[in-house]
Amino acid sequence: MQMLLTAKTELQNRIEKFQKAIQKKGLDGTIISQNVDLFYFSGTTQRSVLYIPRQGPPVLLVQKSLERAKHESALDLIEPMEVPQDIPKVLKKCGIGYPKSVGLEFDVLPVSQFMRFQKVFPDASFSDVSFLIRRLRMVKTPFEIEQIKKATKVIAGSLQKAREIIREGLTEIEVDGALFSLARSQGDQGRLRMRGWNQEMFHSHVLCGKTGATPSFTETPIGGSGTTPAIAQGAGHNRIKRNESILLDLGVGINGYVADVTRTFVIGQLPKKFYKGYEVLHEVAALVESKARPGILCNSLYREAIKLVEGRGLTAYFMGFGDDKVQFLGHGIGLEIDELPVLAKRYPAPLEEGMVFAVEPKMVFPGEGAIGLEDDYVVTSSGLAKLSHFDDGIIHL
Amino acid sequence: MQMLLTAKTELQNRIEKFQKAIQKKGLDGTIISQNVDLFYFSGTTQRSVLYIPRQGPPVLLVQKSLERAKHESALDLIEPMEVPQDIPKVLKKCGIGYPKSVGLEFDVLPVSQFMRFQKVFPDASFSDVSFLIRRLRMVKTPFEIEQIKKATKVIAGSLQKAREIIREGLTEIEVDGALFSLARSQGDQGRLRMRGWNQEMFHSHVLCGKTGATPSFTETPIGGSGTTPAIAQGAGHNRIKRNESILLDLGVGINGYVADVTRTFVIGQLPKKFYKGYEVLHEVAALVESKARPGILCNSLYREAIKLVEGRGLTAYFMGFGDDKVQFLGHGIGLEIDELPVLAKRYPAPLEEGMVFAVEPKMVFPGEGAIGLEDDYVVTSSGLAKLSHFDDGIIHL
Repeated sequence: MQMLLTAKTELQNRIEKFQKAIQKKGLDGTIISQNVDLFYFSGTTQRSVLYIPRQGPPVLLVQKSLERAKHESALDLIEPMEVPQDIPKVLKKCGIGYPKSVGLEFDVLPVSQFMRFQKVFPDASFSDVSFLIRRLRMVKTPFEIEQIKKATKVIAGSLQKAREIIREGLTEIEVDGALFSLARSQGDQGRLRMRGWNQEMFHSHVLCGKTGATPSFTETPIGGSGTTPAIAQGAGHNRIKRNESILLDLGVGINGYVADVTRTFVIGQLPKKFYKGYEVLHEVAALVESKARPGILCNSLYREAIKLVEGRGLTAYFMGFGDDKVQFLGHGIGLEIDELPVLAKRYPAPLEEGMVFAVEPKMVFPGEGAIGLEDDYVVTSSGLAKLSHFDDGIIHL
Repeated sequence: MQMLLTAKTELQNRIEKFQKAIQKKGLDGTIISQNVDLFYFSGTTQRSVLYIPRQGPPVLLVQKSLERAKHESALDLIEPMEVPQDIPKVLKKCGIGYPKSVGLEFDVLPVSQFMRFQKVFPDASFSDVSFLIRRLRMVKTPFEIEQIKKATKVIAGSLQKAREIIREGLTEIEVDGALFSLARSQGDQGRLRMRGWNQEMFHSHVLCGKTGATPSFTETPIGGSGTTPAIAQGAGHNRIKRNESILLDLGVGINGYVADVTRTFVIGQLPKKFYKGYEVLHEVAALVESKARPGILCNSLYREAIKLVEGRGLTAYFMGFGDDKVQFLGHGIGLEIDELPVLAKRYPAPLEEGMVFAVEPKMVFPGEGAIGLEDDYVVTSSGLAKLSHFDDGIIHL
């Protein structure tokens, strides 16, 4: 099976748009060094930095492996580099002058790396371009949407098989392992990426009963116990029981792009309020599906959802409980799982055609369990198109 | 199954040692904010920062979840915090004055987080304490060694089962998924951590034949193809074939602590030079086992190994080929998989009792495949003690 490479036109379009943004900011150029951004602009994640000047072709400066970078990246200028101190020399060779103002990814770049770049360009001033990058990556091309669709299909396959895998007495981590194995054999890339500081993402959160209601450090309503306080999220040693809600929150990555889907399972029956709550989750999803279109503000969608849940008297449980409630309803997905936009109280930006996000209404009943429904969508000119498809009721086993 | 918490005495010893180190550096205190360091000093990774003053008890300031942080951490002072701007106020409440000089983890802390701390303490100067932390974490306590031992046992179980799993025609990713599922059901924490910028670690590298010799961006002799240039390492779509070397490089994490073991498998027979090379890998491991003891310099061990391989005429293949050769032979393991010490050309520090590291002699035959042998050791007063145990020859299936 051939690896899918990013086409040259795809890279060129991204770079041109980014150059317009840094011109507006008055920068001479930008050094891209984080893996994911590197892949977005160059098509490779070999150890390298990408210098994007305000105009003209960018230069990929590669430490290791040059051979593989040249194979993977469709960019024209790919040059070897021994140490970052060589950057000015290599740029000069490519006809690019010493930059006075340089953009960097302040949101992810470690301080020590930043100081290294300061030494490489002692006379330059540096500023943050992470929001420009995140804003650009937020709107997906048809090629990117195609990859996310592939990932949603792998998830649908896993959910189908989960009907057979989930049994009373299995631990959450046993189910988690089996689901990873399934996805991996379908081509899952083996790792999901988050951009946020200290954020880590698991392939799946498998949470049963009370575990679903465990408070968590994650910026999500439901985090799980994990097996250790060292990595305090996801599946744990808890065993699957009858008549308890089983939450499967699955992430799959194909060709770099992730999908993120949640379904609620049960062996037997759930308490009545879980079904009532689930109807409201459905209503919230339907509300977003009907209202979302280019121009609608993300926070207004969030507010309308909150209003709907208030009307049903279930606010206390929606998107977490007590101090662990979160104030969002959905998040962008792409090369990372915490992309823009966010359907959140504090995110007033309008939807745009080509945005892709997961909508994940969830409810937490403290001491009892959680329910959730999550699907992935793309914003089209006329509204939302659903990218993930699977039985969206509570799944009885 | 109860989650294992870190004992108070364990935390206190770590903090006292660290306080001595920051006193020497003339700092008033240190803000610890990276997940792994947080866990090391506080026993929890809930969203928080830990302020360690130059003397007296540290304060854990928690954003989410306070309830869980209080349960997981044995520290005395655990206080809620809404936003980082509240840090000075909370410290004052705990009787800690405004610090003039503050240590931070410059090697991992993003620039934007750093700038946030600068605003919180506008009159303080900041400096890097990451090396102090890494140096402290390098020497393990008996409790920590016990956790790593548990992880090596899970790996031994996986290697045993791998004899049945590996079959001709399976893809590398299918084997990878099955191995993860096995480890996970034995309590594996689901994720391995690396500290290095842009470094990501997979649960396993399953590489067969030519794939084992694919050049890679990783700081290891053998990286694999992966399934996409977006995440260009580890298992790929390549299928297991007869008479090709199959490398299994497995990492497992238990209670936060990782073990890292490699074995070479084959269905059928390998070319003669692979067997000859493997004998040399054995000799290298035996050399390290016999020479390593407190006081021996890491780079001298590396040099002796290189000399041995030269004597056998196999230098060209050892630890990678051509431009993709790496200049190390082993690396510390603990809460992260790239800890100190490194048995490397450029690492002149002496071994100390309690250090734990993986020794991984490997050879790459370009266009053909790779062989590897990796085990984990602890430095004792009298020499090296092996922590991982499994048949250390080439394993014929």
